Amino acid sequence: METLRMVTVVAPVNIAVIKYWGKRDENLILPLNGSISGTLSTNQMCAKTTVSFSRNFTRNRIWLNGVEETFENRRLINCLNEVRRRAKEQGKISPEELEYNVHICSVNNFPTAAGLASSAAGYACLVASLSKLYQLDGDISSIARQGSGSACRSIYGGFVEWIAGDKNDGTDSCAVQVVDSNHWNEMRVLILVVSENKKKTGSTAGMQTSVATSELLKTRVSQVVPKRLADIKQAIYNKDFKTFADITMQDSNQFHAVCLDTYPPLVYMSEVSHAISDLIHQINEEAGKTIVAYTFDAGPNACLYLLEEHVPLVLAAVNHVFPTTQNADTYFTGIPVTLDSQLEKKLPKIVERTPWDPNALRYTVHTKIGEGPKELTAADHLLGANGHPTPMAF
Amino acid sequence: METLRMVTVVAPVNIAVIKYWGKRDENLILPLNGSISGTLSTNQMCAKTTVSFSRNFTRNRIWLNGVEETFENRRLINCLNEVRRRAKEQGKISPEELEYNVHICSVNNFPTAAGLASSAAGYACLVASLSKLYQLDGDISSIARQGSGSACRSIYGGFVEWIAGDKNDGTDSCAVQVVDSNHWNEMRVLILVVSENKKKTGSTAGMQTSVATSELLKTRVSQVVPKRLADIKQAIYNKDFKTFADITMQDSNQFHAVCLDTYPPLVYMSEVSHAISDLIHQINEEAGKTIVAYTFDAGPNACLYLLEEHVPLVLAAVNHVFPTTQNADTYFTGIPVTLDSQLEKKLPKIVERTPWDPNALRYTVHTKIGEGPKELTAADHLLGANGHPTPMAF
Repeated sequence: METLRMVTVVAPVNIAVIKYWGKRDENLILPLNGSISGTLSTNQMCAKTTVSFSRNFTRNRIWLNGVEETFENRRLINCLNEVRRRAKEQGKISPEELEYNVHICSVNNFPTAAGLASSAAGYACLVASLSKLYQLDGDISSIARQGSGSACRSIYGGFVEWIAGDKNDGTDSCAVQVVDSNHWNEMRVLILVVSENKKKTGSTAGMQTSVATSELLKTRVSQVVPKRLADIKQAIYNKDFKTFADITMQDSNQFHAVCLDTYPPLVYMSEVSHAISDLIHQINEEAGKTIVAYTFDAGPNACLYLLEEHVPLVLAAVNHVFPTTQNADTYFTGIPVTLDSQLEKKLPKIVERTPWDPNALRYTVHTKIGEGPKELTAADHLLGANGHPTPMAF
Repeated sequence: METLRMVTVVAPVNIAVIKYWGKRDENLILPLNGSISGTLSTNQMCAKTTVSFSRNFTRNRIWLNGVEETFENRRLINCLNEVRRRAKEQGKISPEELEYNVHICSVNNFPTAAGLASSAAGYACLVASLSKLYQLDGDISSIARQGSGSACRSIYGGFVEWIAGDKNDGTDSCAVQVVDSNHWNEMRVLILVVSENKKKTGSTAGMQTSVATSELLKTRVSQVVPKRLADIKQAIYNKDFKTFADITMQDSNQFHAVCLDTYPPLVYMSEVSHAISDLIHQINEEAGKTIVAYTFDAGPNACLYLLEEHVPLVLAAVNHVFPTTQNADTYFTGIPVTLDSQLEKKLPKIVERTPWDPNALRYTVHTKIGEGPKELTAADHLLGANGHPTPMAF
């Protein structure tokens, strides 16, 4: 009897500071413009995926968060095919093994489709685990890209650029690391999960409509983003927080502006999202310098970039304006923080504001910039020796 | 004893379908791009202004809605000076009379500064009344423009274009009628006043920030608006509602997109505004054709353009999704409407929607396209023989 070949990997979420919105090729997932993101530590949020192949598997199967899903998913199949194509080319896997069916089991430790980049982490994890299973060499970000565009950025840690590329076959559209996770070690990220879960247009359909109808998207792609990419990379190299923050906020706003210029319009930010943005501008104004930046993806949740030293003050301000009735330990998740007790002295005008009704925010996550996908040991496998999900997979 | 020379005028509100946002000259109020609006009937909403001059008036005075305001207002003084300059040139007023002080008394029959274009109606009324008092000939829209940019469009009835012009002295930046108020006689307007009155950035400061910070505004001005102006005029000439509606909605969305691309961002639409926009798209989809268009100015209120035949159905749909607990006679103001009782049959999917909590809307106004400023008789004067406000002025 032969041992089951099995690999388990965790992969990170990433949060773009220069946004990706609009494809030039729907099948290959080639973007209209380059983008840059921070990769978040897998200690707080991650996808975890176990993959396995075996001569005994009668068909390809996949389980997501404990539920079996159909394998008839073009993006999933594209990723698997591309991994196998390269594996064949590289020759470390026998022709026989290349024919075996696979079992895939994946979980997220955070709510899927809550606008928290779950598909990026999920596809990065899928491709990273398959690549290890098939012993691939070389850059795999261009494979992850074919699962979910922004997944390519989760293949590396630190700050990562997805280079748009210009080849029709997409071979030059891949992610590269701008700086590793230690370069700007003081950088922290606060995710404010907003208490709303309306069904919105998904990002794939949304960006198609934007490309078809928004005149302003063309200007963004051709005239705005190239300069912002260059400028924010320089700010990251220099650890120049103010420039980094201004560009991050401006680019988030412009992405949502393009969504509104889409016809019919796409509205991802809620009243609470806008109130958070307004609060951040007020904090920076009252602090007398830029200490925190917001960015919003295709959903209402806010992601704040800020330095470690300012987390207690900013979180205290957020907590004043958006109070909670929850227990601190389920509300403040991630890296422990003690709220700044001097809020009234340091930001008196914020304290004068009338707070929102409690629980406009569902919970918060405090995390930091982290590394790319990591292989775990056999103890973490989500599939058992029989190739079926273990209790950990639910 | 000499009779007091006194004139009273009513002037209309106008609602832009191609938006004005951004000036190329702050003092002369010259716009970056042309704009087009519908002038609303003064039967439902208007400003009313009485102006008078007399050798007995010891200083210039102005009362707005019954409260005396300072005359130290650059825009007010610019308008008065320009009227007097032309009056001197045209020679119908004696040099002595040109030196007399003026009294001005103005009221709006709708809430000021509620995002309902009160300054446009107000300055149009001021300039129209002063122009009659000083017996001016010729186009006065370029004077009204110096009070409040969009006021120039309230000088004419029907659909009106404000031509941006390109001269530095602004003499070619004036309003012209596209079609008179009878041309598209079936056109109706529904104003949905949203129950919110947050303090927002005023439009003067807002557009300055947009000009300074929004890259997308440049594209809008140079590449988008010129074509839209030409296309919507053609749609108005042809009474082509679908084209008119699509351009109107797209232009409103783009204006708010530019506001969001401004830094810090300007957010004028509320959650209710976006829900109205969403409802209108759903109504058009379910109706199988475009029967109603939304547009939003620098505030949360919606203005709907639609044809007379569709008012009962659209208002019934609005009323289903945004129910009220108010009495019908204070809630449905303006031209009487009987709500369509067949809503469930005609738009069943709208009826399936969960309504909002009651009173998200404060009230509605049903009005139509109307004429420009009109002179009233002595019975309507807001100033008495002593040159002071009468009880009607409060």
